[in-house]
Amino acid sequence: MTNDNDIVKPSILPGFMELLPSEQILFNKMLDTIRYNYEKFGFLPIDTPVIERAEILLAKGGGETEKQIYRFKKGDTDLALRFDLTVPLARYVAQHFSELTFPFKRYHIGKVYRGEKAQRGRFREFYQCDIDIIGNEKLDIINDAEIPSIIYSTFKDLGFKSFTIKINNRKILKGFFKHLKILDSTEILRTIDKLEKIGLNKVEEELKEQGLEKEIIREILEFIQISGTNEEKLKKLNSLEIENDIFKEGLNELKTVNYYVKAFGVPEENYMIDLTIVRGLDYYTGTVYETFLDDYPNIGSICSGGRYDNLAEYYTKQKLPGVGISIGLTRLFYQLNEANLIKFEDSSLTKVLVIPMKGYLDQAIKIANLLRDEDINTQIYLEKGKVGKKFSYADKLGIPYTLIIGEEEIKQERYSLRNMETGKQEMLSIEELLLFLNK
Amino acid sequence: MTNDNDIVKPSILPGFMELLPSEQILFNKMLDTIRYNYEKFGFLPIDTPVIERAEILLAKGGGETEKQIYRFKKGDTDLALRFDLTVPLARYVAQHFSELTFPFKRYHIGKVYRGEKAQRGRFREFYQCDIDIIGNEKLDIINDAEIPSIIYSTFKDLGFKSFTIKINNRKILKGFFKHLKILDSTEILRTIDKLEKIGLNKVEEELKEQGLEKEIIREILEFIQISGTNEEKLKKLNSLEIENDIFKEGLNELKTVNYYVKAFGVPEENYMIDLTIVRGLDYYTGTVYETFLDDYPNIGSICSGGRYDNLAEYYTKQKLPGVGISIGLTRLFYQLNEANLIKFEDSSLTKVLVIPMKGYLDQAIKIANLLRDEDINTQIYLEKGKVGKKFSYADKLGIPYTLIIGEEEIKQERYSLRNMETGKQEMLSIEELLLFLNK
Repeated sequence: MTNDNDIVKPSILPGFMELLPSEQILFNKMLDTIRYNYEKFGFLPIDTPVIERAEILLAKGGGETEKQIYRFKKGDTDLALRFDLTVPLARYVAQHFSELTFPFKRYHIGKVYRGEKAQRGRFREFYQCDIDIIGNEKLDIINDAEIPSIIYSTFKDLGFKSFTIKINNRKILKGFFKHLKILDSTEILRTIDKLEKIGLNKVEEELKEQGLEKEIIREILEFIQISGTNEEKLKKLNSLEIENDIFKEGLNELKTVNYYVKAFGVPEENYMIDLTIVRGLDYYTGTVYETFLDDYPNIGSICSGGRYDNLAEYYTKQKLPGVGISIGLTRLFYQLNEANLIKFEDSSLTKVLVIPMKGYLDQAIKIANLLRDEDINTQIYLEKGKVGKKFSYADKLGIPYTLIIGEEEIKQERYSLRNMETGKQEMLSIEELLLFLNK
Repeated sequence: MTNDNDIVKPSILPGFMELLPSEQILFNKMLDTIRYNYEKFGFLPIDTPVIERAEILLAKGGGETEKQIYRFKKGDTDLALRFDLTVPLARYVAQHFSELTFPFKRYHIGKVYRGEKAQRGRFREFYQCDIDIIGNEKLDIINDAEIPSIIYSTFKDLGFKSFTIKINNRKILKGFFKHLKILDSTEILRTIDKLEKIGLNKVEEELKEQGLEKEIIREILEFIQISGTNEEKLKKLNSLEIENDIFKEGLNELKTVNYYVKAFGVPEENYMIDLTIVRGLDYYTGTVYETFLDDYPNIGSICSGGRYDNLAEYYTKQKLPGVGISIGLTRLFYQLNEANLIKFEDSSLTKVLVIPMKGYLDQAIKIANLLRDEDINTQIYLEKGKVGKKFSYADKLGIPYTLIIGEEEIKQERYSLRNMETGKQEMLSIEELLLFLNK
């Protein structure tokens, strides 16, 4: 049909992740674990179109978003691909407001698109795994304390041993800057946000460059260095005696969250008040979260989020406060893989490869039917060829067991099950086989 | 922040499906069931980018595809959204050829995009659930017989009672037309394909319009009216004594497939040889499948596919024959819903809503922690308000049980579990509660 010249070199675009099946299986297991935990805590699934009207997705507008968004026309319609799951959530809640029950707890796992500059570890298509709890007019602060318990449960189930959920409240920062009589703290917050990366001296330097007074810088540095246990930090914040409402409100919220995070069963070693956690500058209005792997701080935050006053102001006049988090699974998977933390052995979904000897296909099919009836993931090797090749097929795919069906087996009504890892081979009756493979 | 004029009316584009959570739960259950069955039969997952180079996706080119595809530029790059999962599979297998193990059995569940004319029941974004078995150079015909058993197992698990998998072999059609000395059968096949819809008389009419000789038309009509059991149909095909290789090859394949479909455990009433099944005119080269709900023939085929000689000729010189099927879940879900075949009651994923009475939040959280530790999907109602409102929240979401935690309960160490459907309320100890909700 085609000649050499017609062949298009098969490749994908830079900045897109594509996995081999053995990797995909583990990626999917992580996705499933996240979904499982989200459902365990009472979140409902939604799924929104990847393509929306550009007008909808860019209602807020401005900043990096507009530059990075995939935007195009189809006919006369100005379209774009979603760049996060929050804007679609806002549109969804505004659109379906009267059909939803509040507080509305939803999870959404899906791909989002950002035409970023291609660089290692940055993806243009990536999975986000989001949960949000949306209130109608108001939403209790206890919700902010439940969120860390969901993060904890999820990352435990994902197999992580040591990680820390860092918690802060932006009202405390806001009140603190009000107390310092700083009207626009944007630049300062941007600097504080980099503390972990650049260190205290560099932060001081940057603050100087911003033209702040010496005394102000001293107070900022003192503030962000507040240390000790969570209780000690709260005490020190109290002792600052900052007398504005927003600071006090933030401090009270943080106290409540700190108390109930413990009540929700998150161990002390897995969460921590950190006054330098800032998060997206204009979106969050109260509690904020970031999560770090203790042994791999360079990976950065693996799960972040926070409280916001008003989810959907661009689409409705309803006031919809909420709190939520997001796990960027594509980037997380990439980073874990780079750090050699993902084990690809034993990832096979298929439990057994049935290998029919010549002339015994009918019997092999019969036995495969029985295995599948018992929900045992089973493949039959249907191609002709040498037995060695068939064993090596199971080996290459990491299928843990092979089952030979031939003359001897049919005569004895016992079948040779081979453990592909140990090489051990046993003759089992159908009943024994089902019992063994079902466990 | 915003005033009235700034509000963008929240809506999605026509031709896109968006579900409420209660619907989404059932949609996801169907997706999970399909995935579960695909894995049971030994298929491996892959996931490819939604965006690919237009050159890749349009390598084959021509036809409806080019008109319907979402295509756009980002910088200088000519991009498009995938319009099916087969072209990405071809590219994937060609690209990763040396890293894959053949026969390569893969499943892929994902969204695809077609900018079709908007009309009821047609979607521009929809889920496809595909499996394919790809051989290197060759692929045994028995694979073609295993496919119907996967369709059968999947649709049984989806809860369908009566459906028929119709099977044909395009080589038989090809050989038959060769025997009639018809070189280009495209138009005739297009007409035959409509038999179910337009009836025999209309088919005859159309064939006349195409200028075919009377005798030829008679033979075609006789051929497509071959009836009886599967065995009788095969016998009649035999008795036609058509002496060309392609016809004989097709007939032999169909005989083999017919024999082994039975061996794979598909009941007689769920499959049928149908010589009028044609499928996509230029893609399939051997066995073809279509699946119909017996009680809802108007829904059309709910699962189709077939055998092809060469998957990836546009991307590699490797010869890669394969066989596969696809379920278009978005359309199927829509059609089932239209036919009132989807029951939205009892779709809640959450098993129990814990309702703390005033002053008993700490204890309620403690008990919710215990339930979640036992993998019981649990929500705590954290907002303040009247108890009636909290019960009605559970009711609206279809949560089957509520658990009240208050003074009496804590004193007695027994907790009131209310069955929201029957209204029956019982006082249970923690052990009884876990046992009851875990079943």
